[in-house]
Amino acid sequence: MSSKKSIILRFEPDGVKAEFERGITILDALREIGLSIRSECGGKGICGKCKVIIQDQSSISGTIERNHMLSSSELKYNYRLACSITAIADSTITIPSESRTSIRKVLVEGTERQVTVNSAIRKVYIELPEPSLSDIRSDAQRLTDSLRDIYRIETARIDYPLLKKLPQILQDSNWKATVTVWDDKEIIAVEAGDTTDIVYGVAVDIGTSKITSYLSNLTTGKLISSGFLENPQVRYGEDIISRISYASKGEEALDELHRLLIDGVNTVIYEACRTSECHPEHIYDMAVVGNTVMHHIFLGIQPTRLGSSPYVPAVNDSVNIKARDLGLKTNPCANVHVLPVIAGFVGADAVADIISTGIYESNKLSLMVDIGTNTEVILGDKHGMLACSCASGPAFEGAHIKCGMKAVTGAIERLQVNSGDYEVEYQTIGNVKPVGLCGSAIIDAVADLLRCRIIDRNGRFNTSTSTLRVRSLNQEKEFVFVSKGENDAARDVVITQRDIREIQLAKAAIYTGCSILMKRNKTKPEDIKKFYIAGSFGNYLNLENAKLIGMIPDIPKEHITFVGNAAGAGARITLISKKHRRIVSLIPKKVQYVELALDADFQKEFVSAMYFPHENLDRFPLVKKDFIEA
Amino acid sequence: MSSKKSIILRFEPDGVKAEFERGITILDALREIGLSIRSECGGKGICGKCKVIIQDQSSISGTIERNHMLSSSELKYNYRLACSITAIADSTITIPSESRTSIRKVLVEGTERQVTVNSAIRKVYIELPEPSLSDIRSDAQRLTDSLRDIYRIETARIDYPLLKKLPQILQDSNWKATVTVWDDKEIIAVEAGDTTDIVYGVAVDIGTSKITSYLSNLTTGKLISSGFLENPQVRYGEDIISRISYASKGEEALDELHRLLIDGVNTVIYEACRTSECHPEHIYDMAVVGNTVMHHIFLGIQPTRLGSSPYVPAVNDSVNIKARDLGLKTNPCANVHVLPVIAGFVGADAVADIISTGIYESNKLSLMVDIGTNTEVILGDKHGMLACSCASGPAFEGAHIKCGMKAVTGAIERLQVNSGDYEVEYQTIGNVKPVGLCGSAIIDAVADLLRCRIIDRNGRFNTSTSTLRVRSLNQEKEFVFVSKGENDAARDVVITQRDIREIQLAKAAIYTGCSILMKRNKTKPEDIKKFYIAGSFGNYLNLENAKLIGMIPDIPKEHITFVGNAAGAGARITLISKKHRRIVSLIPKKVQYVELALDADFQKEFVSAMYFPHENLDRFPLVKKDFIEA
Repeated sequence: MSSKKSIILRFEPDGVKAEFERGITILDALREIGLSIRSECGGKGICGKCKVIIQDQSSISGTIERNHMLSSSELKYNYRLACSITAIADSTITIPSESRTSIRKVLVEGTERQVTVNSAIRKVYIELPEPSLSDIRSDAQRLTDSLRDIYRIETARIDYPLLKKLPQILQDSNWKATVTVWDDKEIIAVEAGDTTDIVYGVAVDIGTSKITSYLSNLTTGKLISSGFLENPQVRYGEDIISRISYASKGEEALDELHRLLIDGVNTVIYEACRTSECHPEHIYDMAVVGNTVMHHIFLGIQPTRLGSSPYVPAVNDSVNIKARDLGLKTNPCANVHVLPVIAGFVGADAVADIISTGIYESNKLSLMVDIGTNTEVILGDKHGMLACSCASGPAFEGAHIKCGMKAVTGAIERLQVNSGDYEVEYQTIGNVKPVGLCGSAIIDAVADLLRCRIIDRNGRFNTSTSTLRVRSLNQEKEFVFVSKGENDAARDVVITQRDIREIQLAKAAIYTGCSILMKRNKTKPEDIKKFYIAGSFGNYLNLENAKLIGMIPDIPKEHITFVGNAAGAGARITLISKKHRRIVSLIPKKVQYVELALDADFQKEFVSAMYFPHENLDRFPLVKKDFIEA
Repeated sequence: MSSKKSIILRFEPDGVKAEFERGITILDALREIGLSIRSECGGKGICGKCKVIIQDQSSISGTIERNHMLSSSELKYNYRLACSITAIADSTITIPSESRTSIRKVLVEGTERQVTVNSAIRKVYIELPEPSLSDIRSDAQRLTDSLRDIYRIETARIDYPLLKKLPQILQDSNWKATVTVWDDKEIIAVEAGDTTDIVYGVAVDIGTSKITSYLSNLTTGKLISSGFLENPQVRYGEDIISRISYASKGEEALDELHRLLIDGVNTVIYEACRTSECHPEHIYDMAVVGNTVMHHIFLGIQPTRLGSSPYVPAVNDSVNIKARDLGLKTNPCANVHVLPVIAGFVGADAVADIISTGIYESNKLSLMVDIGTNTEVILGDKHGMLACSCASGPAFEGAHIKCGMKAVTGAIERLQVNSGDYEVEYQTIGNVKPVGLCGSAIIDAVADLLRCRIIDRNGRFNTSTSTLRVRSLNQEKEFVFVSKGENDAARDVVITQRDIREIQLAKAAIYTGCSILMKRNKTKPEDIKKFYIAGSFGNYLNLENAKLIGMIPDIPKEHITFVGNAAGAGARITLISKKHRRIVSLIPKKVQYVELALDADFQKEFVSAMYFPHENLDRFPLVKKDFIEA
């Protein structure tokens, strides 16, 4: 069939076979049949990315000169550049995975999602023609011409601090440099020599109580290290209302909170860099999430109006801003992408939740709760979402609970009370001596006190229980889980009657948020096919116990996923994926905010939800069957 | 012809008549026949700009409610809003000039050009719906939605310093505010109430020796006031080479020169504001020109490489930068448009020259010299241009000349020496006692010394002249134009043999630049239809004398125009006209830079040009005929 001028090429692992004119370059052949291969320089033999493996060297012809970009072991294993060789006989060509475009995916920790890595940052190595009297193009022109000619990057914008240094950098680099381009729009760095492998970004999650950074390699998408810090603003109050109050004192107070936050973010970035080999100068991109108040203070915007009805934010769209304008100690030309917010109490963290769980593109009706001092609740699917915020308070983060603490070393993270002898088994984070109870253990504790009938469904200590573990201190009942001295415990670890009330308020708030969104959407628990729970419970959360106390609706366990810090994961996704950064900007328009306080049923719902698990047991059929009626 | 349902409307002063359906709004009628009228709100009755005059009130019908935007005297004189009235009978409608779009033109001082005013700044008044629990859009969203709905301005970008203040501004303004938009791209100011009438911009011309500011109203395009200051960098040398040398000492030295320049620009801006009623906060836009070294130092870019071959600039395209990033004391969100440069020694001032003279769009072959310490020469027309730079030195600005001075009060700006008795007639700027000679008088002086045969064509004092005005001082000959005491002169005003040599060098440099460009372009003096001379000669320059000494080619007087500060005029044009700002960015691509030092004929040409007017008299046929052979 084939004429003398034709040859057959077979491409593996795709298994695609086709006829081509003899003498075609392998790169052109690939393009002709539409197989994708990396070729940043467009076939000029400069980028060295279009590697292929050719077993039969006699089937190809081509200059070896471009092959200095291949390592000696690559050459030995028959790697060649597709742009530099032509096919002269039938051949089989293997495309190694590193030469593929658009297939690099990473599993983002804390989510179930595979994300294709395609960050906004592109670094390319370039050798510029030296200026001469016959080529007097400006430095900027020389650079942008080469970017266009070699890499087809059409951008003339050079960030100003870089422009100031450009003549010196280019001269010092002997006109061989690596150029960093943001979003194919702006040149943000030029470095001497080939530094294309050094490309970092950082995602930051600003919580009311803690700040977390995630340093990522923007080429591989991999998480390199992370940093963690208590939000230094806590000195002005634990909850966002006290932060708003303080900021509202005036410009100076706002500046102070802003400064503290920026310092905190710089610290967590430094922390993540310190434990890796990354210099902050090589952080070229950032993604930042936080609740709306943290979002405003991070941007230096007065949050006063978030503290009073109608709780209107200053801005809800994504904000792109230069790191230097915020005083962040990364590359000064780095872009900081601040994710959009939905409403005054449904912030960029909720948007990140939606991204990391994929609710916005799911066919399955999903419910999500991100439990914190304020708990965001989201209900919906790809057709649209409802969201609300519940003032759940910090009980599940261990605050306002006599022996509560954060999910850090020494915290009891799970426990169990035997119904017969009331003996307590428990496990601490880090397997050290017990210090207190973190959120997950608080839930376990209340659930088992219920199971043991030590407390009743309205939360009161049952007076008829006879065990030494129940005692009265200052006329308040409490249950002793760990006595001082036991396993070197420095104090008794207890749950008091007041703690139970605190937990009732918190769990009622969360459940009411869920139930009102479900009512608005005419959703029954059985309609919910995916239920995501996020929050800082450490690594453990007993879902049955959470349902038993009525913190969450009674949804079958197999539909529930605990996703940890979903907001941080969402930030990391938008850091490594331009596509998701575009998606994120559309999220607020797909979400309808529900103001709980305006719902006619809110008060009634809340009061009923104070019961364990609920005043109306029919709302919890599974719990009722497994436990209450047991 | 007309049915009962039709009416005839006649529009004045256009004299256009057409048939319309009865009941059409006047605004729709105007649109239908394509007559332009202002209507920023698109007919919503908000902007109050579509004023028309209707003598016969019975021919129209319409709500008077929108007419609260008209003053009582306007109502009395039958002004109505075209969007608010419908035509019910034949009528004549007059469109007053203030309602016209796209016809506001101003004559830019110092040029012959009418420029249509259409600046990058647009200010619109807006009344926003107040936030409520049923409308919880963010402040930013609320603003951009209204801009889009009312004014069809599609922009979501809010400059960051403004965004930070937005919640406060909107609340304080009671949701009635004026929005300033730059280039339909970015919101740069929001002010309480209606401030649409207050809209300023400033053009700045940064010369090696002086800085000039031009404050303009961006709606009318009119020049409001100007400021003037000696460039504070002169303490580091008079010419650009000494500025480069100083800056090259390092970062600190560059910073100091940059700082001095920014302070100088702030001073001339303040000066222009002080003499008018403009608050610098209301300057929303800037256009800046200067030679390439001043351009670089203004931007804080190290100019070292401009001082050595191949004299390559760091950047040649237009640069848009925020006023705050340069430390300029205008509105911090104002855009600073720095015009592009052509080459190391042909700067943004030359680009502005090309804009203000219109060479780039002319059918006529034009030559331009912008005389200064460096003289730029441009030759060409709309098809393309050549440009070069001549190191003419500061002689024509009065420096390096014994009695030379700038064109300021007390300078002799014109003089004449009678050929019979060598009596001198002169005129000083400001009609005060003579202090020295400015550039134009220096040219007159040399020309008349030539006419009187006191100096010969190679510049030497003629030994045979017998007049007391020629004397020797310290073995150097000089001619005394004004003796000490005469008209209260505080000193003798003379021209020395050394001065003549200085002038020969200067004029030879300028002429050589012209002649080499003409040679490259195969242009003869008679081919040149327009010859523009720019430079700071005050208000006067004797063109015949300039030709006689051979400073400029021998082109008939009727083709020559003296355009003064053409660079400043060009900056002002780009300030008030977006169209010209686009054109300006294309100029560098239309101009080919010629490096004089590389031209084989340069040395020979230069030496021949040292003669008055030239070694080869055939180059100056008109001079030869009128004078030399006389």
